[in-house]
Amino acid sequence: MPHTSETRFRARYSETDKMGVVYYANYLVWMEMGRTDYCKSVGFDYRDMERDGANMAVAEATCRYVSPARYDDEILVSTRVERLNRRLITFVYVITNTQTNSVLAEGHTVHIAMDKDGKARSIPDRYLELMKRVNFPD
Amino acid sequence: MPHTSETRFRARYSETDKMGVVYYANYLVWMEMGRTDYCKSVGFDYRDMERDGANMAVAEATCRYVSPARYDDEILVSTRVERLNRRLITFVYVITNTQTNSVLAEGHTVHIAMDKDGKARSIPDRYLELMKRVNFPD
Amino acid sequence: MPHTSETRFRARYSETDKMGVVYYANYLVWMEMGRTDYCKSVGFDYRDMERDGANMAVAEATCRYVSPARYDDEILVSTRVERLNRRLITFVYVITNTQTNSVLAEGHTVHIAMDKDGKARSIPDRYLELMKRVNFPD
Amino acid sequence: MPHTSETRFRARYSETDKMGVVYYANYLVWMEMGRTDYCKSVGFDYRDMERDGANMAVAEATCRYVSPARYDDEILVSTRVERLNRRLITFVYVITNTQTNSVLAEGHTVHIAMDKDGKARSIPDRYLELMKRVNFPD
Repeated sequence: MPHTSETRFRARYSETDKMGVVYYANYLVWMEMGRTDYCKSVGFDYRDMERDGANMAVAEATCRYVSPARYDDEILVSTRVERLNRRLITFVYVITNTQTNSVLAEGHTVHIAMDKDGKARSIPDRYLELMKRVNFPD
Repeated sequence: MPHTSETRFRARYSETDKMGVVYYANYLVWMEMGRTDYCKSVGFDYRDMERDGANMAVAEATCRYVSPARYDDEILVSTRVERLNRRLITFVYVITNTQTNSVLAEGHTVHIAMDKDGKARSIPDRYLELMKRVNFPD
Repeated sequence: MPHTSETRFRARYSETDKMGVVYYANYLVWMEMGRTDYCKSVGFDYRDMERDGANMAVAEATCRYVSPARYDDEILVSTRVERLNRRLITFVYVITNTQTNSVLAEGHTVHIAMDKDGKARSIPDRYLELMKRVNFPD
Repeated sequence: MPHTSETRFRARYSETDKMGVVYYANYLVWMEMGRTDYCKSVGFDYRDMERDGANMAVAEATCRYVSPARYDDEILVSTRVERLNRRLITFVYVITNTQTNSVLAEGHTVHIAMDKDGKARSIPDRYLELMKRVNFPD
Protein backbone atom coordinates (compact mmCIF):
# COMPACT_ATOMS: atom_id res chain seq x y z
CA MET A 1 0.00 0.00 0.00
CA PRO A 2 1.59 3.27 -1.01
CA HIS A 3 1.59 6.14 1.46
CA THR A 4 -1.50 8.31 0.86
CA SER A 5 -2.30 11.71 2.34
CA GLU A 6 -5.81 13.03 2.85
CA THR A 7 -7.05 16.59 2.36
CA ARG A 8 -10.57 17.56 3.39
CA PHE A 9 -12.46 20.78 2.73
CA ARG A 10 -15.76 22.07 1.38
CA ALA A 11 -16.28 23.23 -2.20
CA ARG A 12 -16.40 27.02 -2.30
CA TYR A 13 -19.11 29.09 -3.93
CA SER A 14 -16.36 30.81 -5.95
CA GLU A 15 -15.41 27.44 -7.40
CA THR A 16 -18.79 26.86 -9.04
CA ASP A 17 -19.79 28.05 -12.49
CA LYS A 18 -23.07 28.82 -14.23
CA MET A 19 -23.64 25.09 -14.83
CA GLY A 20 -24.15 24.91 -11.05
CA VAL A 21 -21.15 22.64 -10.44
CA VAL A 22 -17.47 23.12 -9.64
CA TYR A 23 -15.57 24.52 -12.64
CA TYR A 24 -13.19 21.96 -14.11
CA ALA A 25 -9.94 23.90 -13.64
CA ASN A 26 -10.50 23.98 -9.88
CA TYR A 27 -9.82 20.27 -9.61
CA LEU A 28 -6.20 21.13 -10.43
CA VAL A 29 -6.22 23.59 -7.54
CA TRP A 30 -7.51 20.80 -5.31
CA MET A 31 -4.67 18.56 -6.55
CA GLU A 32 -2.21 21.26 -5.48
CA MET A 33 -3.78 21.25 -2.02
CA GLY A 34 -3.28 17.50 -2.05
CA ARG A 35 0.43 17.95 -2.85
CA THR A 36 0.87 20.48 -0.05
CA ASP A 37 -0.63 18.05 2.46
CA TYR A 38 1.28 15.13 1.01
CA CYS A 39 4.56 16.94 1.72
CA LYS A 40 3.42 17.69 5.27
CA SER A 41 2.41 14.03 5.74
CA VAL A 42 5.94 12.85 4.92
CA GLY A 43 7.55 15.46 7.15
CA PHE A 44 8.25 18.74 5.40
CA ASP A 45 6.61 21.92 4.17
CA TYR A 46 6.76 22.44 0.42
CA ARG A 47 7.37 26.16 1.01
CA ASP A 48 10.66 25.25 2.71
CA MET A 49 11.71 23.30 -0.37
CA GLU A 50 11.06 26.41 -2.49
CA ARG A 51 12.97 28.52 0.04
CA ASP A 52 15.86 26.10 -0.47
CA GLY A 53 15.82 26.92 -4.16
CA ALA A 54 13.90 23.97 -5.60
CA ASN A 55 10.56 24.51 -7.35
CA MET A 56 8.53 21.54 -8.55
CA ALA A 57 7.35 22.88 -11.91
CA VAL A 58 4.35 21.11 -13.42
CA ALA A 59 5.18 19.30 -16.66
CA GLU A 60 1.91 17.48 -17.16
CA ALA A 61 -1.56 17.32 -15.65
CA THR A 62 -4.55 15.14 -16.42
CA CYS A 63 -7.98 14.89 -14.91
CA ARG A 64 -10.84 12.52 -15.61
CA TYR A 65 -14.15 13.95 -14.39
CA VAL A 66 -16.56 11.30 -13.14
CA SER A 67 -19.27 13.11 -11.21
CA PRO A 68 -19.73 16.82 -10.51
CA ALA A 69 -18.91 18.51 -7.20
CA ARG A 70 -21.32 21.14 -5.93
CA TYR A 71 -21.09 24.11 -3.59
CA ASP A 72 -20.57 23.12 0.04
CA ASP A 73 -19.95 19.43 -0.76
CA GLU A 74 -17.37 17.86 1.53
CA ILE A 75 -14.42 16.92 -0.64
CA LEU A 76 -11.59 14.50 0.06
CA VAL A 77 -8.40 14.53 -2.01
CA SER A 78 -6.34 11.35 -1.59
CA THR A 79 -2.80 11.90 -2.86
CA ARG A 80 0.01 9.43 -3.42
CA VAL A 81 3.32 9.33 -5.28
CA GLU A 82 3.49 6.95 -8.20
CA ARG A 83 6.99 7.69 -9.44
CA LEU A 84 9.91 9.42 -7.82
CA ASN A 85 13.50 10.10 -8.71
CA ARG A 86 16.05 12.91 -8.29
CA ARG A 87 14.47 15.06 -10.99
CA LEU A 88 10.83 14.08 -11.24
CA ILE A 89 7.77 13.25 -9.17
CA THR A 90 4.46 11.87 -10.35
CA PHE A 91 1.51 12.41 -8.03
CA VAL A 92 -1.79 10.55 -8.39
CA TYR A 93 -5.05 11.90 -6.96
CA VAL A 94 -8.49 10.53 -6.24
CA ILE A 95 -11.08 13.17 -5.43
CA THR A 96 -14.16 11.97 -3.55
CA ASN A 97 -17.39 13.38 -2.16
CA THR A 98 -17.21 12.25 1.47
CA GLN A 99 -20.97 12.35 1.97
CA THR A 100 -21.92 10.15 -0.97
CA ASN A 101 -18.58 8.30 -1.02
CA SER A 102 -18.58 8.63 -4.81
CA VAL A 103 -15.47 9.40 -6.82
CA LEU A 104 -15.68 12.84 -8.42
CA ALA A 105 -12.43 12.85 -10.36
CA GLU A 106 -9.08 11.15 -10.76
CA GLY A 107 -5.89 12.57 -12.16
CA HIS A 108 -2.16 12.84 -12.01
CA THR A 109 0.51 15.50 -12.29
CA VAL A 110 4.18 15.23 -13.24
CA HIS A 111 6.64 17.67 -11.69
CA ILE A 112 10.24 18.48 -12.55
CA ALA A 113 12.65 20.07 -10.08
CA MET A 114 13.78 23.52 -11.22
CA ASP A 115 15.99 26.20 -9.75
CA LYS A 116 14.75 29.79 -9.42
CA ASP A 117 15.83 30.53 -13.00
CA GLY A 118 13.78 27.67 -14.43
CA LYS A 119 16.70 25.31 -15.06
CA ALA A 120 16.44 21.61 -14.23
CA ARG A 121 18.12 20.60 -10.98
CA SER A 122 17.90 17.76 -8.48
CA ILE A 123 15.42 17.58 -5.63
CA PRO A 124 17.40 18.44 -2.47
CA ASP A 125 18.43 15.24 -0.64
CA ARG A 126 16.56 16.11 2.54
CA TYR A 127 13.19 16.24 0.78
CA LEU A 128 13.90 13.32 -1.53
CA GLU A 129 14.77 11.09 1.42
CA LEU A 130 11.60 12.01 3.29
CA MET A 131 9.49 11.07 0.27
CA LYS A 132 11.44 7.87 -0.40
CA ARG A 133 11.15 6.73 3.19
CA VAL A 134 7.36 6.40 3.02
CA ASN A 135 7.21 5.10 -0.53
CA PHE A 136 10.11 2.69 -0.65
CA PRO A 137 10.73 1.72 2.97
CA ASP A 138 13.66 -0.60 3.63
CA MET B 1 -6.14 21.14 -42.55
CA PRO B 2 -8.75 21.11 -39.77
CA HIS B 3 -10.58 24.30 -38.96
CA THR B 4 -8.72 26.17 -36.19
CA SER B 5 -9.87 29.19 -34.20
CA GLU B 6 -7.52 31.70 -32.63
CA THR B 7 -7.90 33.46 -29.28
CA ARG B 8 -5.53 36.23 -28.28
CA PHE B 9 -5.12 37.98 -24.92
CA ARG B 10 -2.51 38.95 -22.36
CA ALA B 11 -1.72 36.89 -19.26
CA ARG B 12 -3.26 38.54 -16.21
CA TYR B 13 -1.43 39.38 -13.00
CA SER B 14 -4.08 37.35 -11.15
CA GLU B 15 -3.08 34.30 -13.17
CA THR B 16 0.49 34.25 -11.87
CA ASP B 17 1.65 32.51 -8.71
CA LYS B 18 4.57 32.92 -6.33
CA MET B 19 6.83 31.06 -8.77
CA GLY B 20 6.46 34.16 -10.96
CA VAL B 21 4.72 32.31 -13.80
CA VAL B 22 1.13 31.54 -14.77
CA TYR B 23 -0.42 28.99 -12.39
CA TYR B 24 -1.02 25.66 -14.10
CA ALA B 25 -4.79 25.46 -13.63
CA ASN B 26 -5.24 28.68 -15.61
CA TYR B 27 -4.28 26.94 -18.83
CA LEU B 28 -7.59 25.08 -18.53
CA VAL B 29 -9.32 28.45 -18.27
CA TRP B 30 -7.53 29.51 -21.44
CA MET B 31 -8.71 26.31 -23.16
CA GLU B 32 -12.27 27.28 -22.23
CA MET B 33 -11.73 30.67 -23.88
CA GLY B 34 -10.51 28.76 -26.92
CA ARG B 35 -13.73 26.71 -26.97
CA THR B 36 -15.89 29.83 -26.72
CA ASP B 37 -14.13 31.36 -29.71
CA TYR B 38 -14.16 28.09 -31.61
CA CYS B 39 -17.95 28.02 -31.39
CA LYS B 40 -18.14 31.63 -32.58
CA SER B 41 -15.78 30.80 -35.47
CA VAL B 42 -18.12 28.09 -36.75
CA GLY B 43 -21.18 30.30 -36.39
CA PHE B 44 -22.81 30.08 -32.98
CA ASP B 45 -22.50 31.24 -29.39
CA TYR B 46 -21.97 28.49 -26.86
CA ARG B 47 -24.26 30.32 -24.43
CA ASP B 48 -27.13 29.82 -26.91
CA MET B 49 -26.45 26.09 -26.90
CA GLU B 50 -26.74 26.10 -23.10
CA ARG B 51 -29.94 28.16 -23.35
CA ASP B 52 -31.26 25.43 -25.65
CA GLY B 53 -30.69 22.94 -22.84
CA ALA B 54 -27.41 21.33 -23.88
CA ASN B 55 -24.34 21.67 -21.65
CA MET B 56 -20.99 20.30 -22.80
CA ALA B 57 -19.75 18.79 -19.52
CA VAL B 58 -16.02 18.13 -19.33
CA ALA B 59 -15.18 14.42 -19.06
CA GLU B 60 -11.42 14.66 -19.42
CA ALA B 61 -8.70 17.29 -19.60
CA THR B 62 -4.98 17.03 -20.14
CA CYS B 63 -2.25 19.60 -20.42
CA ARG B 64 1.44 19.24 -21.18
CA TYR B 65 3.38 22.28 -19.98
CA VAL B 66 6.34 23.15 -22.19
CA SER B 67 7.44 26.65 -21.25
CA PRO B 68 6.06 29.05 -18.64
CA ALA B 69 3.82 32.02 -19.45
CA ARG B 70 4.46 35.23 -17.54
CA TYR B 71 2.38 38.29 -16.62
CA ASP B 72 1.50 40.46 -19.62
CA ASP B 73 2.77 37.92 -22.18
CA GLU B 74 0.69 37.89 -25.36
CA ILE B 75 -0.95 34.48 -25.53
CA LEU B 76 -2.50 32.70 -28.50
CA VAL B 77 -4.78 29.71 -28.03
CA SER B 78 -5.29 27.71 -31.24
CA THR B 79 -8.29 25.42 -30.93
CA ARG B 80 -9.48 22.66 -33.19
CA VAL B 81 -11.88 19.72 -33.00
CA GLU B 82 -10.31 16.29 -33.20
CA ARG B 83 -13.35 14.13 -32.72
CA LEU B 84 -17.04 14.89 -33.01
CA ASN B 85 -20.23 12.92 -32.81
CA ARG B 86 -23.77 13.38 -31.46
CA ARG B 87 -22.69 12.91 -27.87
CA LEU B 88 -19.06 13.85 -27.61
CA ILE B 89 -16.54 16.46 -28.75
CA THR B 90 -12.77 16.37 -28.33
CA PHE B 91 -11.02 19.72 -28.57
CA VAL B 92 -7.25 20.06 -29.04
CA TYR B 93 -5.37 23.21 -28.03
CA VAL B 94 -1.95 24.67 -28.71
CA ILE B 95 -1.04 27.62 -26.50
CA THR B 96 1.70 29.89 -27.78
CA ASN B 97 3.55 33.01 -26.72
CA THR B 98 3.03 35.28 -29.73
CA GLN B 99 6.12 37.35 -29.06
CA THR B 100 8.62 34.49 -28.85
CA ASN B 101 6.52 32.18 -31.04
CA SER B 102 7.29 29.36 -28.61
CA VAL B 103 4.73 26.76 -27.58
CA LEU B 104 3.79 27.13 -23.92
CA ALA B 105 1.43 24.20 -23.58
CA GLU B 106 -0.64 21.67 -25.46
CA GLY B 107 -3.68 19.81 -24.31
CA HIS B 108 -7.09 18.40 -25.04
CA THR B 109 -10.50 18.19 -23.45
CA VAL B 110 -13.33 15.73 -23.99
CA HIS B 111 -16.91 16.95 -23.56
CA ILE B 112 -20.18 15.07 -23.27
CA ALA B 113 -23.55 16.64 -24.04
CA MET B 114 -25.76 16.79 -20.95
CA ASP B 115 -29.20 18.17 -20.22
CA LYS B 116 -29.79 20.57 -17.32
CA ASP B 117 -30.20 17.61 -14.93
CA GLY B 118 -26.83 16.13 -15.85
CA LYS B 119 -28.19 13.33 -18.04
CA ALA B 120 -26.54 12.42 -21.34
CA ARG B 121 -28.31 13.78 -24.40
CA SER B 122 -27.47 14.59 -28.02
CA ILE B 123 -25.92 17.80 -29.22
CA PRO B 124 -28.77 19.77 -30.84
CA ASP B 125 -28.67 19.36 -34.63
CA ARG B 126 -28.18 23.04 -35.35
CA TYR B 127 -24.91 23.21 -33.44
CA LEU B 128 -23.70 19.78 -34.54
CA GLU B 129 -24.18 20.71 -38.20
CA LEU B 130 -22.27 23.98 -37.81
CA MET B 131 -19.31 22.12 -36.30
CA LYS B 132 -19.43 19.34 -38.87
CA ARG B 133 -19.55 21.76 -41.76
CA VAL B 134 -16.06 23.14 -41.04
CA ASN B 135 -14.53 19.85 -39.96
CA PHE B 136 -15.95 17.40 -42.45
CA PRO B 137 -16.94 19.54 -45.45
CA ASP B 138 -18.61 17.73 -48.34
CA MET C 1 -20.81 40.95 21.83
CA PRO C 2 -22.21 40.13 18.40
CA HIS C 3 -22.25 36.51 17.30
CA THR C 4 -19.05 35.75 15.35
CA SER C 5 -18.24 32.67 13.30
CA GLU C 6 -14.71 31.42 12.66
CA THR C 7 -13.34 29.88 9.48
CA ARG C 8 -9.85 28.38 9.42
CA PHE C 9 -7.81 27.18 6.44
CA ARG C 10 -4.39 27.51 4.86
CA ALA C 11 -3.61 29.91 2.01
CA ARG C 12 -3.36 27.98 -1.25
CA TYR C 13 -0.48 28.15 -3.70
CA SER C 14 -3.04 29.06 -6.38
CA GLU C 15 -4.03 32.11 -4.36
CA THR C 16 -0.56 33.68 -4.53
CA ASP C 17 0.68 35.95 -7.31
CA LYS C 18 4.08 36.91 -8.67
CA MET C 19 4.56 39.37 -5.80
CA GLY C 20 4.82 36.24 -3.62
CA VAL C 21 1.73 37.04 -1.56
CA VAL C 22 -1.97 36.23 -1.77
CA TYR C 23 -3.64 38.08 -4.65
CA TYR C 24 -6.01 40.75 -3.41
CA ALA C 25 -9.21 39.44 -5.00
CA ASN C 26 -8.88 36.20 -3.04
CA TYR C 27 -9.72 37.97 0.20
CA LEU C 28 -13.24 38.34 -1.19
CA VAL C 29 -13.31 34.58 -1.74
CA TRP C 30 -12.27 34.14 1.88
CA MET C 31 -15.09 36.47 2.95
CA GLU C 32 -17.50 34.22 1.08
CA MET C 33 -16.16 31.22 3.02
CA GLY C 34 -16.77 33.27 6.15
CA ARG C 35 -20.40 33.84 5.11
CA THR C 36 -20.95 30.13 4.42
CA ASP C 37 -19.69 29.25 7.90
CA TYR C 38 -21.60 32.10 9.49
CA CYS C 39 -24.84 30.63 8.14
CA LYS C 40 -23.90 27.19 9.46
CA SER C 41 -23.06 28.73 12.84
CA VAL C 42 -26.56 30.16 13.19
CA GLY C 43 -28.21 26.93 12.07
CA PHE C 44 -28.70 26.70 8.33
CA ASP C 45 -26.88 25.99 5.08
CA TYR C 46 -26.78 28.89 2.65
CA ARG C 47 -27.30 26.44 -0.23
CA ASP C 48 -30.71 25.59 1.25
CA MET C 49 -31.64 29.25 1.21
CA GLU C 50 -30.75 29.38 -2.51
CA ARG C 51 -32.75 26.19 -3.09
CA ASP C 52 -35.68 28.00 -1.47
CA GLY C 53 -35.35 30.68 -4.13
CA ALA C 54 -33.47 33.41 -2.27
CA ASN C 55 -30.02 34.49 -3.45
CA MET C 56 -28.03 37.02 -1.44
CA ALA C 57 -26.59 39.10 -4.28
CA VAL C 58 -23.57 41.24 -3.40
CA ALA C 59 -24.26 44.95 -3.64
CA GLU C 60 -21.04 46.25 -2.16
CA ALA C 61 -17.68 44.94 -1.00
CA THR C 62 -14.72 46.65 0.60
CA CYS C 63 -11.41 45.39 1.84
CA ARG C 64 -8.59 47.15 3.65
CA TYR C 65 -5.33 45.24 3.28
CA VAL C 66 -3.08 45.52 6.32
CA SER C 67 -0.43 42.83 5.99
CA PRO C 68 0.12 40.24 3.24
CA ALA C 69 -0.85 36.57 3.51
CA ARG C 70 1.56 34.02 2.11
CA TYR C 71 1.28 30.46 0.82
CA ASP C 72 0.50 27.93 3.55
CA ASP C 73 -0.18 30.59 6.20
CA GLU C 74 -2.94 29.57 8.60
CA ILE C 75 -5.79 32.01 8.06
CA LEU C 76 -8.73 32.80 10.30
CA VAL C 77 -11.78 34.64 8.98
CA SER C 78 -13.98 36.05 11.76
CA THR C 79 -17.41 36.94 10.42
CA ARG C 80 -20.24 38.82 12.04
CA VAL C 81 -23.44 40.56 10.95
CA GLU C 82 -23.52 44.30 11.40
CA ARG C 83 -26.91 45.07 9.91
CA LEU C 84 -29.86 42.89 9.11
CA ASN C 85 -33.35 43.40 7.84
CA ARG C 86 -35.82 41.63 5.53
CA ARG C 87 -34.02 42.72 2.39
CA LEU C 88 -30.41 43.34 3.30
CA ILE C 89 -27.52 41.92 5.30
CA THR C 90 -24.18 43.56 6.02
CA PHE C 91 -21.37 41.20 6.99
CA VAL C 92 -18.12 42.39 8.57
CA TYR C 93 -14.92 40.34 8.39
CA VAL C 94 -11.58 40.35 10.16
CA ILE C 95 -8.95 38.16 8.50
CA THR C 96 -6.04 37.13 10.70
CA ASN C 97 -2.86 35.08 10.43
CA THR C 98 -3.30 32.62 13.29
CA GLN C 99 0.43 32.03 13.72
CA THR C 100 1.48 35.66 14.07
CA ASN C 101 -1.92 36.79 15.39
CA SER C 102 -1.67 39.82 13.12
CA VAL C 103 -4.62 41.22 11.22
CA LEU C 104 -4.19 40.72 7.47
CA ALA C 105 -7.31 42.47 6.24
CA GLU C 106 -10.69 43.82 7.26
CA GLY C 107 -13.73 44.35 5.13
CA HIS C 108 -17.45 44.22 4.72
CA THR C 109 -20.01 43.14 2.18
CA VAL C 110 -23.61 44.20 1.68
CA HIS C 111 -26.08 41.67 0.29
CA ILE C 112 -29.58 42.08 -1.08
CA ALA C 113 -32.08 39.23 -1.26
CA MET C 114 -33.02 38.41 -4.86
CA ASP C 115 -35.21 35.81 -6.47
CA LYS C 116 -33.88 33.58 -9.27
CA ASP C 117 -34.70 36.24 -11.85
CA GLY C 118 -32.67 38.89 -10.07
CA LYS C 119 -35.64 40.77 -8.59
CA ALA C 120 -35.55 42.04 -5.01
CA ARG C 121 -37.47 39.90 -2.52
CA SER C 122 -37.50 39.27 1.23
CA ILE C 123 -35.21 36.87 3.03
CA PRO C 124 -37.36 33.82 3.85
CA ASP C 125 -38.59 34.00 7.46
CA ARG C 126 -36.89 30.79 8.53
CA TYR C 127 -33.42 32.10 7.69
CA LEU C 128 -34.08 35.62 8.88
CA GLU C 129 -35.22 34.35 12.28
CA LEU C 130 -32.13 32.17 12.69
CA MET C 131 -29.88 35.14 12.02
CA LYS C 132 -31.89 37.47 14.24
CA ARG C 133 -31.86 35.04 17.12
CA VAL C 134 -28.08 35.24 17.56
CA ASN C 135 -27.77 38.92 16.78
CA PHE C 136 -30.72 40.40 18.53
CA PRO C 137 -31.61 37.89 21.24
CA ASP C 138 -34.64 38.66 23.38
CA MET D 1 -11.33 65.50 -18.21
CA PRO D 2 -8.91 63.09 -16.56
CA HIS D 3 -7.02 60.64 -18.71
CA THR D 4 -8.98 57.36 -18.94
CA SER D 5 -7.85 54.04 -20.36
CA GLU D 6 -10.20 51.45 -21.80
CA THR D 7 -9.97 47.67 -21.49
CA ARG D 8 -12.31 45.43 -23.45
CA PHE D 9 -12.85 41.68 -23.17
CA ARG D 10 -15.58 39.08 -22.79
CA ALA D 11 -16.63 37.58 -19.47
CA ARG D 12 -15.25 34.07 -19.16
CA TYR D 13 -17.23 30.98 -18.28
CA SER D 14 -14.76 30.39 -15.42
CA GLU D 15 -15.74 33.76 -13.98
CA THR D 16 -19.37 32.81 -13.46
CA ASP D 17 -20.79 31.10 -10.39
CA LYS D 18 -23.83 28.96 -9.66
CA MET D 19 -26.01 32.10 -9.51
CA GLY D 20 -25.39 32.30 -13.27
CA VAL D 21 -23.54 35.61 -13.10
CA VAL D 22 -19.92 36.72 -12.73
CA TYR D 23 -18.61 36.01 -9.23
CA TYR D 24 -18.02 39.21 -7.27
CA ALA D 25 -14.29 38.78 -6.63
CA ASN D 26 -13.62 38.74 -10.38
CA TYR D 27 -14.45 42.43 -10.65
CA LEU D 28 -11.22 43.05 -8.74
CA VAL D 29 -9.38 40.98 -11.35
CA TRP D 30 -10.95 43.16 -14.02
CA MET D 31 -9.79 46.26 -12.16
CA GLU D 32 -6.26 44.85 -12.26
CA MET D 33 -6.57 44.46 -16.04
CA GLY D 34 -7.67 48.09 -16.11
CA ARG D 35 -4.52 49.11 -14.20
CA THR D 36 -2.28 47.16 -16.58
CA ASP D 37 -3.80 48.94 -19.56
CA TYR D 38 -3.77 52.29 -17.80
CA CYS D 39 0.00 52.01 -17.39
CA LYS D 40 0.37 51.10 -21.08
CA SER D 41 -1.83 54.04 -22.04
CA VAL D 42 0.49 56.51 -20.29
CA GLY D 43 3.61 54.92 -21.76
CA PHE D 44 5.01 52.10 -19.67
CA ASP D 45 4.53 48.45 -18.79
CA TYR D 46 3.75 47.79 -15.14
CA ARG D 47 5.96 44.69 -15.27
CA ASP D 48 8.94 46.96 -15.98
CA MET D 49 8.14 48.95 -12.86
CA GLU D 50 8.19 45.73 -10.84
CA ARG D 51 11.46 44.73 -12.51
CA ASP D 52 12.83 48.08 -11.35
CA GLY D 53 12.01 47.06 -7.79
CA ALA D 54 8.74 48.89 -7.19
CA ASN D 55 5.55 46.93 -6.47
CA MET D 56 2.24 48.76 -6.12
CA ALA D 57 0.76 46.82 -3.20
CA VAL D 58 -3.01 47.14 -2.75
CA ALA D 59 -3.98 48.90 0.47
CA GLU D 60 -7.70 49.21 -0.16
CA ALA D 61 -10.31 48.06 -2.63
CA THR D 62 -14.00 48.78 -2.92
CA CYS D 63 -16.62 47.74 -5.41
CA ARG D 64 -20.26 48.69 -5.74
CA TYR D 65 -22.19 46.13 -7.80
CA VAL D 66 -24.97 47.64 -9.88
CA SER D 67 -25.99 45.03 -12.42
CA PRO D 68 -24.68 41.49 -12.99
CA ALA D 69 -22.31 40.51 -15.79
CA ARG D 70 -22.95 37.21 -17.54
CA TYR D 71 -20.84 34.75 -19.51
CA ASP D 72 -19.71 36.11 -22.88
CA ASP D 73 -20.89 39.66 -22.17
CA GLU D 74 -18.62 42.29 -23.69
CA ILE D 75 -17.11 44.19 -20.79
CA LEU D 76 -15.44 47.60 -20.77
CA VAL D 77 -13.28 48.71 -17.85
CA SER D 78 -12.65 52.48 -17.83
CA THR D 79 -9.76 53.33 -15.55
CA ARG D 80 -8.51 56.67 -14.33
CA VAL D 81 -6.24 57.99 -11.60
CA GLU D 82 -7.92 60.04 -8.91
CA ARG D 83 -4.97 60.70 -6.64
CA LEU D 84 -1.25 60.41 -7.19
CA ASN D 85 1.85 61.17 -5.23
CA ARG D 86 5.31 59.67 -4.69
CA ARG D 87 4.01 56.91 -2.45
CA LEU D 88 0.40 56.32 -3.34
CA ILE D 89 -1.96 55.97 -6.29
CA THR D 90 -5.74 55.80 -6.23
CA PHE D 91 -7.38 54.27 -9.30
CA VAL D 92 -11.08 54.62 -10.06
CA TYR D 93 -12.93 52.16 -12.30
CA VAL D 94 -16.23 52.07 -14.11
CA ILE D 95 -17.17 48.67 -15.49
CA THR D 96 -19.75 48.63 -18.26
CA ASN D 97 -21.56 46.13 -20.45
CA THR D 98 -20.77 47.47 -23.94
CA GLN D 99 -23.85 45.91 -25.52
CA THR D 100 -26.43 47.32 -23.13
CA ASN D 101 -24.29 50.34 -22.21
CA SER D 102 -25.30 49.81 -18.59
CA VAL D 103 -22.90 50.24 -15.70
CA LEU D 104 -22.18 46.91 -14.01
CA ALA D 105 -19.93 48.08 -11.21
CA GLU D 106 -17.84 50.95 -9.93
CA GLY D 107 -14.93 50.87 -7.57
CA HIS D 108 -11.56 52.12 -6.56
CA THR D 109 -8.25 50.77 -5.33
CA VAL D 110 -5.48 52.44 -3.36
CA HIS D 111 -1.90 51.32 -3.94
CA ILE D 112 1.29 51.97 -2.00
CA ALA D 113 4.74 51.65 -3.54
CA MET D 114 6.76 48.88 -1.89
CA ASP D 115 10.19 47.42 -2.47
CA LYS D 116 10.69 43.68 -2.92
CA ASP D 117 10.85 43.21 0.85
CA GLY D 118 7.50 44.90 1.41
CA LYS D 119 8.88 48.19 2.73
CA ALA D 120 7.42 51.51 1.63
CA ARG D 121 9.43 53.34 -1.03
CA SER D 122 8.84 55.99 -3.66
CA ILE D 123 7.46 55.35 -7.12
CA PRO D 124 10.47 55.57 -9.47
CA ASP D 125 10.60 59.00 -11.12
CA ARG D 126 10.29 57.67 -14.65
CA TYR D 127 6.90 56.08 -13.97
CA LEU D 128 5.65 58.86 -11.74
CA GLU D 129 6.38 61.45 -14.43
CA LEU D 130 4.55 59.45 -17.11
CA MET D 131 1.47 59.25 -14.92
CA LYS D 132 1.64 62.91 -13.90
CA ARG D 133 2.01 64.07 -17.49
CA VAL D 134 -1.48 62.83 -18.48
CA ASN D 135 -3.18 63.71 -15.22
CA PHE D 136 -1.70 67.05 -14.38
CA PRO D 137 -0.46 68.44 -17.70
CA ASP D 138 1.32 71.79 -17.62
